[in-house]
Amino acid sequence: MIRVTVWNENRHEQTNEKVREVYPEGIHGAIASFLKEENFEVKTATLDEPEHGLTEEVLKNTDVLLWWGHVAHDDVSDEIVTRVKDRVLDGMGLIVLHSGHFSKIFKTLMGTTCDLKWREADEKERIWVVSPGHPIAEGIGEYIDIEREEMYGEHFDIPDPDELVFVSWFEGGEVFRSGCTYKRGKGKVFYFRPGHETYPTYYHEKVQQVIKNGVHWAKPTVLGDVHYGNAKPLEEIKSK
Amino acid sequence: MIRVTVWNENRHEQTNEKVREVYPEGIHGAIASFLKEENFEVKTATLDEPEHGLTEEVLKNTDVLLWWGHVAHDDVSDEIVTRVKDRVLDGMGLIVLHSGHFSKIFKTLMGTTCDLKWREADEKERIWVVSPGHPIAEGIGEYIDIEREEMYGEHFDIPDPDELVFVSWFEGGEVFRSGCTYKRGKGKVFYFRPGHETYPTYYHEKVQQVIKNGVHWAKPTVLGDVHYGNAKPLEEIKSK
Amino acid sequence: MIRVTVWNENRHEQTNEKVREVYPEGIHGAIASFLKEENFEVKTATLDEPEHGLTEEVLKNTDVLLWWGHVAHDDVSDEIVTRVKDRVLDGMGLIVLHSGHFSKIFKTLMGTTCDLKWREADEKERIWVVSPGHPIAEGIGEYIDIEREEMYGEHFDIPDPDELVFVSWFEGGEVFRSGCTYKRGKGKVFYFRPGHETYPTYYHEKVQQVIKNGVHWAKPTVLGDVHYGNAKPLEEIKSK
Amino acid sequence: MIRVTVWNENRHEQTNEKVREVYPEGIHGAIASFLKEENFEVKTATLDEPEHGLTEEVLKNTDVLLWWGHVAHDDVSDEIVTRVKDRVLDGMGLIVLHSGHFSKIFKTLMGTTCDLKWREADEKERIWVVSPGHPIAEGIGEYIDIEREEMYGEHFDIPDPDELVFVSWFEGGEVFRSGCTYKRGKGKVFYFRPGHETYPTYYHEKVQQVIKNGVHWAKPTVLGDVHYGNAKPLEEIKSK
Repeated sequence: MIRVTVWNENRHEQTNEKVREVYPEGIHGAIASFLKEENFEVKTATLDEPEHGLTEEVLKNTDVLLWWGHVAHDDVSDEIVTRVKDRVLDGMGLIVLHSGHFSKIFKTLMGTTCDLKWREADEKERIWVVSPGHPIAEGIGEYIDIEREEMYGEHFDIPDPDELVFVSWFEGGEVFRSGCTYKRGKGKVFYFRPGHETYPTYYHEKVQQVIKNGVHWAKPTVLGDVHYGNAKPLEEIKSK
Repeated sequence: MIRVTVWNENRHEQTNEKVREVYPEGIHGAIASFLKEENFEVKTATLDEPEHGLTEEVLKNTDVLLWWGHVAHDDVSDEIVTRVKDRVLDGMGLIVLHSGHFSKIFKTLMGTTCDLKWREADEKERIWVVSPGHPIAEGIGEYIDIEREEMYGEHFDIPDPDELVFVSWFEGGEVFRSGCTYKRGKGKVFYFRPGHETYPTYYHEKVQQVIKNGVHWAKPTVLGDVHYGNAKPLEEIKSK
Repeated sequence: MIRVTVWNENRHEQTNEKVREVYPEGIHGAIASFLKEENFEVKTATLDEPEHGLTEEVLKNTDVLLWWGHVAHDDVSDEIVTRVKDRVLDGMGLIVLHSGHFSKIFKTLMGTTCDLKWREADEKERIWVVSPGHPIAEGIGEYIDIEREEMYGEHFDIPDPDELVFVSWFEGGEVFRSGCTYKRGKGKVFYFRPGHETYPTYYHEKVQQVIKNGVHWAKPTVLGDVHYGNAKPLEEIKSK
Repeated sequence: MIRVTVWNENRHEQTNEKVREVYPEGIHGAIASFLKEENFEVKTATLDEPEHGLTEEVLKNTDVLLWWGHVAHDDVSDEIVTRVKDRVLDGMGLIVLHSGHFSKIFKTLMGTTCDLKWREADEKERIWVVSPGHPIAEGIGEYIDIEREEMYGEHFDIPDPDELVFVSWFEGGEVFRSGCTYKRGKGKVFYFRPGHETYPTYYHEKVQQVIKNGVHWAKPTVLGDVHYGNAKPLEEIKSK
């Protein structure tokens, strides 16, 4: 059984009535709720818990971590970011959602600014599948229509994705690489764009399907031991 | 349950006593045998059966096809190659083994000559994992040692793999990209190097593990319908 | 000096007055004309010439070949396609334009159907740069606006590009991977989307700039000899 | 004219007589010397200069920066690393050599540990070209033989390279992805493995050729302005 931890900054929910209306249990609550349908073992963690809810114990017992953050990226302690990064490099899957593009954990794993264009204009978004054989696209069909979302536009300053699964079209004239996969160390990373806090995006059935698919895809691979550092010579070299 | 068809040219087995000794049930028989342990539904097909054993019906009911061929690539009919290709583009997984690098099906999916260097000299091969988080490397550890194999060396004339999972080291001074993944249409393709007919390579536990992992990885993604050709205009364009 | 051959089917120009008006010297003539400004050595070739204008001699003396075709892909002989393919694998650059996505040469190098969606509705296209450090994007800025073009939409059935340089936005709701690079053998391949025959797209300064950049990028690399086939053993293996 | 700055830690040269013997002008001096033959404008900078020789002015006037470091990675100030990183993301090329794999600048651009296996055993290295059409392989032939080098072995903990140009074979049984390219922001990054301080590797003609090729490849692309942040809505959205 895949063990999932849904991390949310959970600040908008405290201060913005509109967000609270859309997500009465918090964005993390809404995401945890549909992930439970998939027979994952799901927990949540939020910024204002001790150690942001991401203790060594929690991370050790997490196969896939989801990350939603927006206005408080700087309040995430560098120590916890390092801890999460080490765990990703050791094999834990990481799914970064929407404004998480600017989170410390995403930026440190990417090595770039992760900057982009944005606009809040109640725009229609159409997310096209460009990699129809990719397991993250399972069951999605050709595209996902979202009636109103925040726009994110290129240039999105990320490394070329290992795999590009989705590209978004926006009413106002922009495109965006909306579904991107990366491997970092032994871990898998999936960035998925939609999910502005004032829209009911995480209730959208296909958005939920993509995130469920993402969890399956990002689960750790158990390779066995890998050794780094000083290596033993083979006999033939030693005896030369 | 994943439905697997193991295709083998099955010619060496008829003419070469050494090969018959190593693989009394044929290479396809040996591969089918260990795949059955994994709870796949496994069938075999060979060159000299009608339609090479690859009827429309067989292919329709195959999720992942394995391909071993060597001396009789030209005896595979173009019609069957086209049939297999169409099925791969439609989602069937394809695992191409060893000398299958020169098969018509692999060459037509790659678009290159797929040429390489080779040498039969009872050399030691060490297959290194270079993508430790890849599901095809599950359970393999750092490398696979094969005491004696045919050498394949670079340059291997293939498109840059979507993912490079394994790189081989050979005693005589060569390296080889031994585990390569590709997506073609809706299908996934995995090339895996080892398996010369005169060596007991397909009894090697880790080689078996890689092929089992490959089947899991290559299983079809069910996306839903994709439409090509003339597209309907949106209302706003029509009414301009 | 880079030697460029611009190949054009040149059929619309014979039968469609509108196309003749837009491109009185043919599409090949228009492209050759702006390439000459870049200090390339430029020739043209067309379908109805002997050997489609692509003799062994012509190809041997071509560093980069451009390809525009649309209604007569099937009239290109398989022999010439094989000749062009061999030359690409041997190092010649190939730039495939617009409806050339369905040409035999592109399909055989890709290994997929190269199918897509299309619509003729005088739509606005905005071609976004998604790889701002790529030499093919030199001097382009953030995007290229084309007032009216034919729409091409995803899913575009190509292998994942080695590099994705441009993504198009279309008024009617589609996106398209408009600038894709591939390596095949020793050759470089660049697909660039715009250029429907009834629009003056090849007079657009930025479209011209991309094609010029593409020629520079696609020029052959002189590696030196590469040997395939039976390889010599090293002394230490021979003497075992 | 491409403006190159060769940065070297320059510590071994102060303390190790063997290194001083091999590189009497320092590793930076040796590299600068052969780069000057290529008609680049070449400068050097070292760790113990003020600001490590990498002032804002120097970086602004550098098109491609080369980086050699080994025992003193931690002595490079975080401020300068950030400055170099910003300049790479803004378009400056970066070539990281040998033990520079553990430099702060490489690790921060990669997002991984960049760890590997190593062994000092006077081993033979054979660097195979696996991407014969890549401009960095120009003039190299099939491989580069280096009689004695330090071994670096997989797993090399880097993101999957955008392009894999070289793979090394080592006498003792290891392989290594020795030539890797990346894009980060608008900048290009090339990692090239050989160059242990006690061997005369940087006098090897083909090693020099690769580094020269790398400089040509890594030179900045001048795209034009890219805008990030809040984007203007199109008229049609504003007027809704």
